[in-house]
Amino acid sequence: MPEPIVFYDIPGLVKGKAWSPHTWKTRYTLNFKGIPYKTVWVEYPDIEALCKKIGASAADKRQDGTPLYTLPVIYDPNTKSVVSDSAAITRYLDKTYPDTPRLIPEEADALITAFEVARWAVFPEMDPRPIIIPAVFSILRPASQPYFRETREKRLGKLEELAPKGSEKRAKHWEGVRKGLHTIAGWLEADGKEKLFIMGDKKGITYADFMLAGFFMWFKRCCGEDSQEWKDITSWDGGRWGRFMSALEKYESVDEGEDVAL
Amino acid sequence: MPEPIVFYDIPGLVKGKAWSPHTWKTRYTLNFKGIPYKTVWVEYPDIEALCKKIGASAADKRQDGTPLYTLPVIYDPNTKSVVSDSAAITRYLDKTYPDTPRLIPEEADALITAFEVARWAVFPEMDPRPIIIPAVFSILRPASQPYFRETREKRLGKLEELAPKGSEKRAKHWEGVRKGLHTIAGWLEADGKEKLFIMGDKKGITYADFMLAGFFMWFKRCCGEDSQEWKDITSWDGGRWGRFMSALEKYESVDEGEDVAL
Repeated sequence: MPEPIVFYDIPGLVKGKAWSPHTWKTRYTLNFKGIPYKTVWVEYPDIEALCKKIGASAADKRQDGTPLYTLPVIYDPNTKSVVSDSAAITRYLDKTYPDTPRLIPEEADALITAFEVARWAVFPEMDPRPIIIPAVFSILRPASQPYFRETREKRLGKLEELAPKGSEKRAKHWEGVRKGLHTIAGWLEADGKEKLFIMGDKKGITYADFMLAGFFMWFKRCCGEDSQEWKDITSWDGGRWGRFMSALEKYESVDEGEDVAL
Repeated sequence: MPEPIVFYDIPGLVKGKAWSPHTWKTRYTLNFKGIPYKTVWVEYPDIEALCKKIGASAADKRQDGTPLYTLPVIYDPNTKSVVSDSAAITRYLDKTYPDTPRLIPEEADALITAFEVARWAVFPEMDPRPIIIPAVFSILRPASQPYFRETREKRLGKLEELAPKGSEKRAKHWEGVRKGLHTIAGWLEADGKEKLFIMGDKKGITYADFMLAGFFMWFKRCCGEDSQEWKDITSWDGGRWGRFMSALEKYESVDEGEDVAL
């Protein structure tokens, strides 16, 4: 039995309600593979310091070209490896733990990489963001809220004005989300056979499914399971996204974990 | 031996120099599978009349929602089937001629469908168009030129002003094309192994490769093989697109065909 992997995630107000669409891709991956891990919770303002301390590379860049340190990051004590970026982490786990089910089939690597671009391209003018970003803010702990507000408002404008509840603007963006997801639903039946999973139900779950599922968890956790948004998403396209998320429910467990010590 | 499939394509000035990125996806497919076919050349203004005559569905929509009839279309005399849209044609041929190599593997159907979106999403602000659309116009026959000019100028503005040779605007759009193709090259080595074909060199050629190759043929045929544009494309990213197109050269044959009789 390998030593547990250390999985760095961003906390929300409620313990156990992991919410980040990007770290969810890794949590799903770890849960699906059944690899033991423990979560270490890192508030937004601490991510860069953590990454520099443990030698994690920056997985993204700011618009000005400077490195942007993001989570997920894992540390694997069995190989003394630090890996950043959810796709790179899945590739690392596929390779390092070959007895666990492979999530990025070799022949689909480029297509799954492109899928990350395609699934965002269906939303014109960043449709989901004016709705989801204020919802994220509302479930963050005080230690992350000012950092999150400052960085997001620089790009998008004042959170409270992005898409206020009941506004026409919100309805327009939400309709954009519906249409985008309808396009993705179309990809899943382009050959005339409706599939639950991206690579078909014979092949089963792959990392591409966790990309989509992470997006859905973002809404489920930040808008809330009782929200109109979550009700809409799970009923659109004949309820296909509701069925999809139900099928992945067994990979949704979240350990209590501990706060990072820097 | 089946009767030859009738393949409807759009002619250019020079016989044998097929140029349309969309019909190339089908021509590559037919050549790769080794299915006998004959080309019937259809000028732009005749496409709708042809489709209505043979019962081909419209594969696209205009911005106002009315049907837009496009090529490729095929007629298969062996099954008396008419099929529109290059992906649907490949799926049809995969299914109807199962002894030929399959180009859309069942498990990759949704990912390849999404790839069509992803490969365009890498170009911000429709970068290639201001350069390629006037080049297309320059190689069309007089029967198609007025139709092509009118429909494209409605969306993009005067062809001669889109990106004149030597202009800064052209340089900016061309840099956008370079960057977009560099992103796609990145997908092809995201796992650290440089691949010539999208689904890897073990799996070999799939329909996703013909999507990209059709894009390249557009430039090769409309800008010309001796153009700076073609020299650039084949040298970018260490010459990978040049090697890619060389590997597909054996599927580039074009029959003389005949002009459509309506």
